[in-house]
Amino acid sequence: MERTLTKETVNKIGQKVHVMGWIDRLRDHGGVLFFDLWDRSGILQVVVKEIKGELHPQDVVSIMGEVKKRPAGTENKELSTGKVEIEAQEVEVISKAETLPFDMGGPDLNLELPTLLDWRALTLRHPKIASIFEVQEVVIDAFRKTLKDLGFAEFQAPIIVPATAEGGAEVFPVKYFEHTAYLGQSPQLYKQIMLGVFERVFTVTHAFRAEPSVTTRHLTEYISLDAEMSFIKSWEEIMDTVEHVVHKIINAVDTHCSEQLKMYNTTIPTAPQNFPRIKLKEAHDIIYKRTGRDNRSEPDLSPIDEEEICRWAKEEKGSDFVFITHYPVKKRPFYTYPDPHDKEFTLSFDLLGRGLEWVTGGQRLNDYKELIENIKRWGNNPKDFELYLQAFRFGMPPEGGFAMGAERVTMKILGLANIREASLFPRDMERVDIRLSSQKSKVKSKNGKKD
Amino acid sequence: MERTLTKETVNKIGQKVHVMGWIDRLRDHGGVLFFDLWDRSGILQVVVKEIKGELHPQDVVSIMGEVKKRPAGTENKELSTGKVEIEAQEVEVISKAETLPFDMGGPDLNLELPTLLDWRALTLRHPKIASIFEVQEVVIDAFRKTLKDLGFAEFQAPIIVPATAEGGAEVFPVKYFEHTAYLGQSPQLYKQIMLGVFERVFTVTHAFRAEPSVTTRHLTEYISLDAEMSFIKSWEEIMDTVEHVVHKIINAVDTHCSEQLKMYNTTIPTAPQNFPRIKLKEAHDIIYKRTGRDNRSEPDLSPIDEEEICRWAKEEKGSDFVFITHYPVKKRPFYTYPDPHDKEFTLSFDLLGRGLEWVTGGQRLNDYKELIENIKRWGNNPKDFELYLQAFRFGMPPEGGFAMGAERVTMKILGLANIREASLFPRDMERVDIRLSSQKSKVKSKNGKKD
Repeated sequence: MERTLTKETVNKIGQKVHVMGWIDRLRDHGGVLFFDLWDRSGILQVVVKEIKGELHPQDVVSIMGEVKKRPAGTENKELSTGKVEIEAQEVEVISKAETLPFDMGGPDLNLELPTLLDWRALTLRHPKIASIFEVQEVVIDAFRKTLKDLGFAEFQAPIIVPATAEGGAEVFPVKYFEHTAYLGQSPQLYKQIMLGVFERVFTVTHAFRAEPSVTTRHLTEYISLDAEMSFIKSWEEIMDTVEHVVHKIINAVDTHCSEQLKMYNTTIPTAPQNFPRIKLKEAHDIIYKRTGRDNRSEPDLSPIDEEEICRWAKEEKGSDFVFITHYPVKKRPFYTYPDPHDKEFTLSFDLLGRGLEWVTGGQRLNDYKELIENIKRWGNNPKDFELYLQAFRFGMPPEGGFAMGAERVTMKILGLANIREASLFPRDMERVDIRLSSQKSKVKSKNGKKD
Repeated sequence: MERTLTKETVNKIGQKVHVMGWIDRLRDHGGVLFFDLWDRSGILQVVVKEIKGELHPQDVVSIMGEVKKRPAGTENKELSTGKVEIEAQEVEVISKAETLPFDMGGPDLNLELPTLLDWRALTLRHPKIASIFEVQEVVIDAFRKTLKDLGFAEFQAPIIVPATAEGGAEVFPVKYFEHTAYLGQSPQLYKQIMLGVFERVFTVTHAFRAEPSVTTRHLTEYISLDAEMSFIKSWEEIMDTVEHVVHKIINAVDTHCSEQLKMYNTTIPTAPQNFPRIKLKEAHDIIYKRTGRDNRSEPDLSPIDEEEICRWAKEEKGSDFVFITHYPVKKRPFYTYPDPHDKEFTLSFDLLGRGLEWVTGGQRLNDYKELIENIKRWGNNPKDFELYLQAFRFGMPPEGGFAMGAERVTMKILGLANIREASLFPRDMERVDIRLSSQKSKVKSKNGKKD
C-alpha cells in the first residue's frame, strides 16, 4: 500500500492508510498506547489498542490503520492534523531505538547545553530544537531570494585561502601539501573581485574565526550571508539595502514560521520602515546620558553598551534595530572607506538588533593606489593580495556591501540564550562534535538533577 | 538623472538616458569610437562621436546620451539590445583601467590555462568565461528547487570535522587551537544524521580532497551538491531521484542559458526518461567486446573506460547518461549497503554523463550494529564516529543518497576541457589563487605567441 504522509491524513477520514515515521511522546493510558508519529510533513496522533511487542520513543515504525475523527473535546488546535488520529491495526518496527538517555517527550528539552550538544544527533530530533533550523532555512532562503530579486548574482566563495585578509581576527592554518593555507575569515575579497564580473553579488558561505575565547555570541565556524554591490550612489544605499533584506527576512519568518515562533513564545522584531542611524560617538553620548557609563573614548561598543543602545532605540524610536555608523579607521579592515569629512572615521556601520550585532558593512576603497597604500599601512604585503588587487587595477566603480551571520539572526529572532543553540553542529574552542578534551558529560537536566 | 540599465534601453528609443558600466570591445572606426558597455543586465553598443580624453577596455564609465535605433543592416541579433545603440553626449570615466595584459575583446579568450588563472580577477570578466558561472548558478538553483519541491529540507553542513570519514581519499589537516581537525571530504555523515531530523535533506557545500595528483577532473576544493533520503522503498528509488534531478537541472540550463550554450557551441545532453542501468561487471564485458580491452578484474572503471561506456550508451541506448551499479565492497566506504544477493558487491552506483562521473550514490547501512562492525572492518575506531552512530542507535529507517560535483556538471554541460575552467577560483596542488611555487607565468596565448 502506498505511503500516506501524516499531514495528508486529514483528507482521509474513514480510510485505511499506511503511514511511516518516528515515535515521539509515547503514553500508556491503561493498556491503550498513544503516541505522536512524526514524518517530514508533520505529526499525527496514533492510538494502539492491541499491543503486540514493545514500542519505544524514536523507534521507526510502519503503521496500517484507519484515520478517525478524534472524539469531541480531544482535538489539538496546535496541530494541523489535530482533528484526526489513526487507529493502528498493524505496527511494524522498522528500526528499533535504544532507551533514550533522557526524556524527549515534553514540549521543552530541559537539558544543559553540554548535554544538548553531546547528544546532538538525538537532541536535534526534538521538535523545538528542529524548529530552530526550520527558521534558519527560511532566513537563508529569504536572504537569497531578496537579493536575486534585486539583480544580485549568487557565487560560491572558496573556503581555502592563501593569505589572511582581515587584520586582527585569528585564522586557522591548513596544511596544504607542502604549504600553509588558511580557512577564510570571510568571503570579503572574493565578493569584491566578483563585482567586476556580475556588478552585484552575494554568497552563502562558511567563515572561520580562531578566536581563543568562549562567549555566547561566537562560533569558530559560522554561516556568513555576504553581499556586495557596485555603482552605489552613496554609502547610505548599502544601509537601505540592509533594511530591505532584514525586512524581507523577518517577514518571511513571520509568514512561514508562526508555529516555531509560538514554540519560543516570541514574535518577530519590531522593524520600522527606516531603522535609526546614529554615529558611534552619538551612541556613546546616549549611553553616557542614560547610564552614566562613560565609554566615549572607546572605539567600539561593549556587549552591554550594545544592549543599552538597543533599549534606547526601542524606547525612543520604536525599533528593535539600530544602525551604528562611523567606526574609527583603526577598528576596521584595510579596505574600509574613510569618511571624507573626518579621515579618522569610516563609512562603515553595524546593524544591531535586539541587543546584538546582526550585520556589519560599509563602503570600500575602490581606488587601486589607495588600496595598496592601505594594505601597507595595515602591515601587510600587497604581493599577498595580488589577485584581489587585479580587480581594482582594471576598473572598479564605487562599491560596498555587508555580511550577516545566519546563526545570530536565528538566535535573536527566537530569543535563544546561546549562539551554539542556533548552529546544527556548533564548533568552538572546546568542541568539534565531540569535546576536544574527550571528556563526556553526564546527562544533566537544567535544574541540576541527574536522570 | 536616474540610471537606466542597458537592457531597459530598448524601450527608450529617442530618450536621453544615463547608463553606467564597464567598457568592452572598444573599436576606433575613423575617429568614431564604438564599444560594448556591460552592466549586470547585459550589453549595449555605445557610439562616441566627439572624443574627449582617452578610453580603455575595462574602464568604468558613466554615460549620458540618446538611445537610437541602429542603422538598418547593423542590428545584432545575438544581443537583446541589438536593435539599439546609445549615442554618447557625455562620457565620464569613474574608474580607469590599466592597459590589459592581453586582448579581452574577442568572442573567445584565447589564453593558456595558467594565464587564464594567473589573471583570474580579470579573465572572469570576459563574457564567455562569466557565462560558465551563470550556468553553474542555474545548475545549483535547479538542484535546490527540485529537492525542495520533493520535500527535502536544506541544511548547512560543517566544514571542519573531527575525524576522517571516507576511507582512502586524502584529507587536509587544520591546526585547531591545540588540536588537529580536518576539512570535510564530504558532508556524508552529517546528511545521514540529519535524516533523523528532517527525513529528507540536502546541502550545497564545499568538500575537500588532498589528492596529490593533477588531473583535468579533480579539484582540492569543490562544490558538493549532496542529498539523502530515508524511507526508501528500494535502492532504485535513489536512482529514480537522481534521474529526476538531472532532468530538472539540464532542462533549467536549456531554458535559462540558451545564450551561454550557444557561446560554447553546444546543447544540453541527451537524457531519455530512464537512463540505462548496468552493473560494473556488465560494463566491463561491453567494453571488452567493443575494444578488446580486458579490465574485467578491475574494481572500477578507468577514465577511458568511462568514456567508452558512455559511447556505448549513446550509440545503443540514445543516452548521454548511464548508471554503473554494484561496485565491489572494497571500493566503497564503510557505510555502503552490501547487495543481499552477493555480499562482495554493493547497492551503489555512479552516474556517468558525457564520459565522466557526475553523481555517486547508493543505499547506506542503517543498522547500528552492522555500522559498528563495518567501521572496525575498515580499520577505524567507532569512538571517532560517536555522533554519527548516535543517529543509528535511536532509530533510522532504510535510506540512501547521492552527491554531485557542481563543477563537473558545469564542465560537462558546456564541454570544457578542464575542470579548473568550471571553478571561479580553482584550488589544486599547485595553486591557491596564486601559484604556490610563486612563479608568475608570462602571458601566453594558446597558439604560443607572446602578447
